[in-house]
Amino acid sequence: MRKILVLGAGKSSWHLINYLLSNAQEQNWHVTVADASVELAKSKTQNHSASNAIAFNINDESQRKSEISKADIVISLLPPSLHAIAAVECLSEGKNLVTASYVSEQMNALNNDVKNKNLIFLNECGLDPGIDHMSAMQIIHVLQAKGAEIISFKSYTGGLISPGSNNNPWGYKFTWNPKNVILAGQGTALYRQNRNNKFTPYHRLFSQIEKINISGTGQFEGYANRNSNAYIETYNLQNISTLLRGTLRYAGYCSAWNLFVHLGITDDTYLINTSSLTYHDWISSYLPDNEKSLIQNLQSQFSYLNLSTDDWERIKWSGILDKTPIPLSSGTPAEILLNLLESKWKMELGDLDLVVMQHIFEYILNGKTQTHVSSLSVKGENETATAMSKTVGLPMAIAAKLILNGKVKTKGVAIPVVAEIYEPLLHELAQMGIVFIEEHIY
Amino acid sequence: MRKILVLGAGKSSWHLINYLLSNAQEQNWHVTVADASVELAKSKTQNHSASNAIAFNINDESQRKSEISKADIVISLLPPSLHAIAAVECLSEGKNLVTASYVSEQMNALNNDVKNKNLIFLNECGLDPGIDHMSAMQIIHVLQAKGAEIISFKSYTGGLISPGSNNNPWGYKFTWNPKNVILAGQGTALYRQNRNNKFTPYHRLFSQIEKINISGTGQFEGYANRNSNAYIETYNLQNISTLLRGTLRYAGYCSAWNLFVHLGITDDTYLINTSSLTYHDWISSYLPDNEKSLIQNLQSQFSYLNLSTDDWERIKWSGILDKTPIPLSSGTPAEILLNLLESKWKMELGDLDLVVMQHIFEYILNGKTQTHVSSLSVKGENETATAMSKTVGLPMAIAAKLILNGKVKTKGVAIPVVAEIYEPLLHELAQMGIVFIEEHIY
Repeated sequence: MRKILVLGAGKSSWHLINYLLSNAQEQNWHVTVADASVELAKSKTQNHSASNAIAFNINDESQRKSEISKADIVISLLPPSLHAIAAVECLSEGKNLVTASYVSEQMNALNNDVKNKNLIFLNECGLDPGIDHMSAMQIIHVLQAKGAEIISFKSYTGGLISPGSNNNPWGYKFTWNPKNVILAGQGTALYRQNRNNKFTPYHRLFSQIEKINISGTGQFEGYANRNSNAYIETYNLQNISTLLRGTLRYAGYCSAWNLFVHLGITDDTYLINTSSLTYHDWISSYLPDNEKSLIQNLQSQFSYLNLSTDDWERIKWSGILDKTPIPLSSGTPAEILLNLLESKWKMELGDLDLVVMQHIFEYILNGKTQTHVSSLSVKGENETATAMSKTVGLPMAIAAKLILNGKVKTKGVAIPVVAEIYEPLLHELAQMGIVFIEEHIY
Repeated sequence: MRKILVLGAGKSSWHLINYLLSNAQEQNWHVTVADASVELAKSKTQNHSASNAIAFNINDESQRKSEISKADIVISLLPPSLHAIAAVECLSEGKNLVTASYVSEQMNALNNDVKNKNLIFLNECGLDPGIDHMSAMQIIHVLQAKGAEIISFKSYTGGLISPGSNNNPWGYKFTWNPKNVILAGQGTALYRQNRNNKFTPYHRLFSQIEKINISGTGQFEGYANRNSNAYIETYNLQNISTLLRGTLRYAGYCSAWNLFVHLGITDDTYLINTSSLTYHDWISSYLPDNEKSLIQNLQSQFSYLNLSTDDWERIKWSGILDKTPIPLSSGTPAEILLNLLESKWKMELGDLDLVVMQHIFEYILNGKTQTHVSSLSVKGENETATAMSKTVGLPMAIAAKLILNGKVKTKGVAIPVVAEIYEPLLHELAQMGIVFIEEHIY
């Protein structure tokens, strides 16, 4: 009997836990699902005989040590800031760890110790980061083996609403962590273009977009995401001219969202007393006083953004101009906006989500410049078995299986860019319908 | 013999130490000047018989305790982040403290303990904050005593170059902490206008400016500074319609600086490897690639800023477009810009600095709306006895004298908004030429 400890039973856990339980008998697994809410954990284990659900507090040292010591592997779905606590305990107890989060500095600092204990802490093993790395590396390795020189690689991912459930002017509903959507892009994006580093600060991010078509699914727009250049080494693409990782939205979203950025209402650094404010009052507080109506004032202040009639419809639809009281006593601008959009961008019963990804490679082979486009489109099954849960959770579950079965020789703090992980993992994902469509353009 | 300990002998200390030494005999003072560089400390004490200069490390606990225990009062010119260390020691040793810095949360947290020990930690007692508070409170108290209803108060301060030394297109040279000038305005400014709170995020701060004329000195432009609303209570102006504290630059500065803000090159949060970059390369990395020249590319990308020919001359003059190698191996954008401007905006031999301040009050008295404008203009004497050193240092020195002589009854963590401090202090400043010109407009 091998014991798997899953930390966290939130939104993204359904497919992960379902996979583990479905394979428990064959694989001789016992699965413990630990969450702050035991009810949430139970809702995912459904009294399956190979499982138990427990109330769990990662900050309770004795419980943490006790549960991790009993496990053969730990899968952490905790918020990224809490992975390090789990990781330090896994190191101390000699247990392998899998997460879907970016390798933090704290995590990276454990690398030598993890290696010395002959363990693997596999991170960035969800969707983005995760499937993006694996599917890209598979193509990169094939191209490099053929002797191709890869000159450009752009990779875009989006967690969106499926076309059939897309019934608001933004083409967006929350299918994932809503706060992350509000804060998306804060900081400065870095990528490589034509052999030069390119920096895009937040207030220009949503106007420097690229149009992306995923045939059979729709028209999207992509904006640059974080530090793409960090992956030049990881992907073994030291001589590449252009490398950009980005985020996808349906066409039209970015230009309207840019108004929120330029207004300043996505800021999460200061609190506003909102006890007697309407949304209309709040937005007015970001504009100079004059005789104009709020919408006219916005249109004149932000004429430089060149927003379309559709953009203004999106902005009006959002409710930020309404003379409705803000139902919070205080909050940061980002929290006020989040609270408003949580009602507007809520998934309704029957709504299905959509995960889209596209890699665009340009390479020179036999003296000829060619393009390879690899596209993924995954639709959710229902409100619980979402595409996001599937594409984030299944890679972690399969990775855990590979590690438990001794198929992974890699040690240390790692991400899934090696063939021993991505080959079997992508193969199994394909069997479960997570499959890329490949197009070659000569 | 009363002992005064001055922590820090940097740029702003000349007038402060000169005042203390000039008054040492009459006041029976001994002055210890402590700095990381004993040479710098000695250059300020000049072997004066009532002084000693010491090498000092605030982080050396035993030295800190020993020096503070010997003093009757401590004047801290340390960087703001280090005041708290000095403050905790002063509390433990039962010594009064004077600083010219904003009251930090850490400082404020000591308030009850400071009161309980019957001490005063007087902060914000320099120029801005400092003279601005004192001169404003004096007028506010007079107006309130007359029964006036103050409806608007705007207060602007600038540390600039004197008109006679103003020989570059920006009208700016570093007369004060250069890094603070690069980072000025980051965050979101908050003020009150027509009874409403107004937020101005950083990327709109330098385009929402007010023109300010200081007669006899020049034309300036003011932008909002930090959280003005924090002073509504402090100034006892709870019913005021408009309250704004701001920073002054010579006319033309803000629109050109706004390009740097919109480019993203004032960001201090990430490092760039600059070992093989020219300024031209660096600035290009903030723009999409195209066939245009860098200046054309900038002019087209930032056409929405509506910069004037003079603004573009300022930008060219700054050197950011030059194909000159950046003389740093790495730095944040703000550090690269600072390094460049430190050579461009350097005070030359013979250059004199200038401190300007203007308060604009609107009030209703006897049913009539009236305006009172109070303006200050102080020119430096030479490169050492600068206007900035005078206006920051003398208020601290005089405050220390008042405290040592038992003239201050206020206890706790305080700022100089009470008559027992500002009356004698402003009176003595006026005798030393720091005097406001008052204009009433009926």
